[in-house]
Amino acid sequence: MPAYKLHYFNLRGRAELARLILNQAGVEFEDVRFERAEWPALKASMPFAQVPVLEVDGQMLAQSNTISRYLARQHGLAGKDEWEQAQADMYADNINDLMTGMRPAFLEKDADKQKELYQKFMTDSVAPHVAIVEKQLEKNGSGHLVGKELTWADLAYYGYFSFLVEKFGEDFLKDAPLLKALIAMVEALPNIKKWVESRPKTEI
Amino acid sequence: MPAYKLHYFNLRGRAELARLILNQAGVEFEDVRFERAEWPALKASMPFAQVPVLEVDGQMLAQSNTISRYLARQHGLAGKDEWEQAQADMYADNINDLMTGMRPAFLEKDADKQKELYQKFMTDSVAPHVAIVEKQLEKNGSGHLVGKELTWADLAYYGYFSFLVEKFGEDFLKDAPLLKALIAMVEALPNIKKWVESRPKTEI
Repeated sequence: MPAYKLHYFNLRGRAELARLILNQAGVEFEDVRFERAEWPALKASMPFAQVPVLEVDGQMLAQSNTISRYLARQHGLAGKDEWEQAQADMYADNINDLMTGMRPAFLEKDADKQKELYQKFMTDSVAPHVAIVEKQLEKNGSGHLVGKELTWADLAYYGYFSFLVEKFGEDFLKDAPLLKALIAMVEALPNIKKWVESRPKTEI
Repeated sequence: MPAYKLHYFNLRGRAELARLILNQAGVEFEDVRFERAEWPALKASMPFAQVPVLEVDGQMLAQSNTISRYLARQHGLAGKDEWEQAQADMYADNINDLMTGMRPAFLEKDADKQKELYQKFMTDSVAPHVAIVEKQLEKNGSGHLVGKELTWADLAYYGYFSFLVEKFGEDFLKDAPLLKALIAMVEALPNIKKWVESRPKTEI
């Protein structure tokens, strides 16, 4: 097994999916976390002056979904064939888009305006997405987003949607029993449960 | 060979990388283009109410880099092993980030403010990225971004950077001879040359 080090801020954010994959696969890794004040000194050591970065036996890999996909492939969570793998990629990209779409609200300094931007994001971006994914889950019929087994797509949806539930409550899932069940299913996986209970508590 | 249909606006934008891959691989596909006015009527037929979408024997796949990666894997342009494939993924994600980062400037209605936003984007995002990629190309030493052969990463950098050259001139590449050479190398590939000469001329 290679020696993995995952470099990121002391946040869930863009690194948590990789951590969920590694934990679910039962793979040891060094979870290297740093504070914002340390970042300027570290920046130049990262391949594109960005994190997360996965270090694999000393070689550096950047870009969150690239890291997660690589780990999912190495550890049996990528999907059983090329088409399933592509579908898992698609779902992971959806989550990436939602994260990016939420950034303007997150960065807003004015509290009232921030609240308004968050509401707009939940109404314009999350609500229609939830409705579509609920239909896809119904069509797929297995309780998983892709095929009949757990993939990193399920972990991606769990990671992001459990964060939204924590932040905004679960009202936005009221017409999405299958997505709610998916989140609960992942949350109950023993390795995930153990990780979620033991990981550092962070706001995002 | 499956029957491919690529659904997108009559633009290069987020679909052009898939088109470059298909052309380079010499694979036939139906390049389904529509105008903005037609989009509202088509939206519901797309898996996440978004395009590009690749239709593969009637099955739909969304998300631009997911589509491009799938095509690259099917047609020998993804990299020779898992690590090379991950590196190609990383480069493709970089281009996706640059495209997303350019959106606020693109959407700005006020001409002066737009010019300012474009300049800021070129200075703050493109210039440091070009400097880093130039070093990576030097380190890799093959004239390619990944390994020793052409991958979809090279096509992604060609597609986006040739667009920037077209829009802003090539001054931003003055200290990046290797990146410039990469763009010229891809542009001279016979299948790419033929495609670029024959494709619809569009602003983006």
